[in-house]
Amino acid sequence: MTLGILGGGQLGRMTALAAVRLGIDVRVLAESEAAADGVRWLRDVTIGDWTDADVLRRFADGCDAVTVESEWAPADRLADAAPGVAVWPSPATLHVVRDEVRQRVQLCNAGLPGPDWGACSTAESLRERTGEMGLPVVVKRRRGSYDGYGNATIRDDANLDAAWTALADADGVLVEAFVPFVAEASVIVARSAAGETAVYPVFRTEQRDHRCHAVTVPSGFSAETEAEALRVAVEAAEAVGAVGLLAVEVFVMADGSVLVNELAPRPHNTGHLTIEACHTSQFENHVRAVLGLPLGDASLRVPAAVMVNVLGQTDSPARTDTLADALVPNGASVHLYGKRESRRARKMGHVTATAATPDAARRIAEAAAARLVL
Amino acid sequence: MTLGILGGGQLGRMTALAAVRLGIDVRVLAESEAAADGVRWLRDVTIGDWTDADVLRRFADGCDAVTVESEWAPADRLADAAPGVAVWPSPATLHVVRDEVRQRVQLCNAGLPGPDWGACSTAESLRERTGEMGLPVVVKRRRGSYDGYGNATIRDDANLDAAWTALADADGVLVEAFVPFVAEASVIVARSAAGETAVYPVFRTEQRDHRCHAVTVPSGFSAETEAEALRVAVEAAEAVGAVGLLAVEVFVMADGSVLVNELAPRPHNTGHLTIEACHTSQFENHVRAVLGLPLGDASLRVPAAVMVNVLGQTDSPARTDTLADALVPNGASVHLYGKRESRRARKMGHVTATAATPDAARRIAEAAAARLVL
Repeated sequence: MTLGILGGGQLGRMTALAAVRLGIDVRVLAESEAAADGVRWLRDVTIGDWTDADVLRRFADGCDAVTVESEWAPADRLADAAPGVAVWPSPATLHVVRDEVRQRVQLCNAGLPGPDWGACSTAESLRERTGEMGLPVVVKRRRGSYDGYGNATIRDDANLDAAWTALADADGVLVEAFVPFVAEASVIVARSAAGETAVYPVFRTEQRDHRCHAVTVPSGFSAETEAEALRVAVEAAEAVGAVGLLAVEVFVMADGSVLVNELAPRPHNTGHLTIEACHTSQFENHVRAVLGLPLGDASLRVPAAVMVNVLGQTDSPARTDTLADALVPNGASVHLYGKRESRRARKMGHVTATAATPDAARRIAEAAAARLVL
Repeated sequence: MTLGILGGGQLGRMTALAAVRLGIDVRVLAESEAAADGVRWLRDVTIGDWTDADVLRRFADGCDAVTVESEWAPADRLADAAPGVAVWPSPATLHVVRDEVRQRVQLCNAGLPGPDWGACSTAESLRERTGEMGLPVVVKRRRGSYDGYGNATIRDDANLDAAWTALADADGVLVEAFVPFVAEASVIVARSAAGETAVYPVFRTEQRDHRCHAVTVPSGFSAETEAEALRVAVEAAEAVGAVGLLAVEVFVMADGSVLVNELAPRPHNTGHLTIEACHTSQFENHVRAVLGLPLGDASLRVPAAVMVNVLGQTDSPARTDTLADALVPNGASVHLYGKRESRRARKMGHVTATAATPDAARRIAEAAAARLVL
C-alpha cells in the first residue's frame, strides 16, 4: 500500500512516520528542497513543480491515495491530472475551506454557530456591514490567512479603508463581528470515505501573538461545552464533506457556548499531543481515513497531556546544539522538524508531556520547550 | 547530529524512527537488500560487505555514534576500522555477551544469581558436569543461540553425546542446570557513557515454542520480586559495561526469587510496548544513550499495556492484505516491519494495546494480532 503526500513540512513528516509504522510505503512531492526539509530522511521524495500535470501524474502513479499537509497544496490539480487516484481532502472540500466566505456560508447553511459575518465586495459594503454589526470587527483576507496573517481587528471606523486596501482581493473581504471569547478550543474529527467517524477529545488551545502556544487535555471546560464543541465539529466535518481529518477551532464564550472560528482539512498543530496521548494519533487516523482503512480509537490513553510549540527566535540557520538541554526535564517527548532555516515565529518543533494532571504535564512540557533554541 | 545503525531489521527500523523524531539524521549499513527491508523507507541506507574495513570506514565517516541492532553486527570491526567514532555497545561488552560462557562468568563475578552452570570443553567434561548437577540440564551453543535455536534440554544421559555433537564449537559448550521457573520477566536498562541509568519497569514475558509471544506490564509479580529483578538488571548492566540498552531476561522462581537467564545489549522484543506505554521508549533511550544525550523517563505513562508478537505462518512472500482487518479491534497500535519475505515463526510485526488493566489490554492486542496474517 502506498500513500502519497503533497508537502514535506512537519505535518507531512509526522504523517509519514505514522504510515511507516503501519508498514505503508510513503512518497512525498514538494515544490522545493526547503519545503522537503521535514522529510529529508525519507527515501521517496520528489522535488518538482507541483502545479505541473505531468509531475503530478508521475507522482500519483502507483499511489493508493494521495493527501496533503496543507489546504494550499494542489490536490485539486492532482485530481484533474490523475483522475484514477483517490485524493483527500477532495477538491470540493478544498474549494470550501480555502475561502473564508465559503466556509462561513457552509457553516451557516448547516446551522452551526458562528459570529455575525458579511461578505463585502466593495469598501462601501465593508463600511456598511461594519455599521450594522458595530465595532470592533475583524476583517479577513478571503484566501491564505493563517496565524494572524491576513486579518486585522478594527476598533475605529477610520481604519476600515486601510484594512480594505491591505486585505481585499478580487472577491473582496470577509468581515466578522469581534468575538469576546473567554477561551479557545479545537476538536479534530477523522472521517473516512465510508462515513466512519472518530472524534478526538476537546483540546484547550492557547495562543500567543496569534500563534498556538500550548494545547491541554482534558480541556477543563464544562461537560455541556465539551458536548457542544464535539457536536459542532462532527457536523462541520459532514458539512464540508471531509475525508481524512478536519480540525475545527472554536471560541468558548462566557456562558459556555461555542462559536466556530475556523476549519482546517488536515492534521493540525493542536493535535500533535495525540501522538503520545491517544490510542491512535491524528496522523495515523488521517492515514487510515484517506486509505480507506478502519479508523482507530481517538480517546486518551493517559490522564492528561500538554503540548507546547517551539518557535524560531531569529532568522538564521537552525541551531541544533540545544537538544541535549531540552532532554533534561524528565518525561518530555521532544519533536524536532528538521528545518534547516529558522525564522522568527516559524514552527521548528514541539514538546509533549503526559502526566496525572494537566498542571504536572504543563510544567514538564514548558520546561523542555523553554530550553530549545532552534 | 548523525546516528549510524548496523542492521536494517525491525530493531534498526524502530531505532531510526525514534531518532528521526528527535531531528537526528540516521544512516544504516546492512549486508543485503533483504536485511534492509525494515528501513526501505529511509534515504541513507548502504548495502555492502559490512565486514570490509573500507565499507565500515566510509559508513562511520560523519557519524556522531554508531550502534547495532544485533550483538552479531560487526561493531568490533567498525571500532577497529574507524577508531575516532563512538561505537556502542563497546567491543568489550560484545566480547562478553556474544559468548554464553563469558556472560555466566561475568554475572557470577558480579555476584548475580543464576542457575548452576559449567563450561565444558570436551564431551567427557559435559558428562561429568551433568553428573554433578543432576538431570535435567540445558546444553547451549556458546555463540549464536537465540529463540530456542542452539540449545537442547537433556533429560536422559543417553542424549548428552548427541547434544555435544550438535552444539559444541572449538571452545565446547555451556551446560546449565534446568531451571524450574514459574514465570519469566525482562528488565531493560538504559545506560549512558557518562554512567547515567534509566530502568524500565519489570515486564512479564510469555514464550510459545521458545519465542516471545506476549509481554505484560505491570508484571503482577510481588514488590520483592520486582525489586530484585530491577537490582539484578542494573548490576548486570554495570557488570558488562553496557552503554545503550541492556535487556536482562530472568526466570522467576516459585519462592519469588529471580535467576538471570540471558543478556542482550540492544533494543529488545520485550521492550516494544515502551513505544506506547512509557514516557521514553526503549528505542529513544537507546538513541539518547549512544549519542551521549541525557536519558529519558522510563516509567509508564499508562496504567497497563500488553504487546503481542505477530509471526510469519508460512515460507512465502509476505501478505499485505490483512492490515485492514487488524485495525478493527479498537485501540490497538499495529506495527508492521516491512519484511517482504515471510517465514514460519519469523517476527513480522507486533501489536500493542494500553488500557486500564492488563486483561483489557490483552484482549485488544490478541484480537488485533490474531487478525494479522503476514
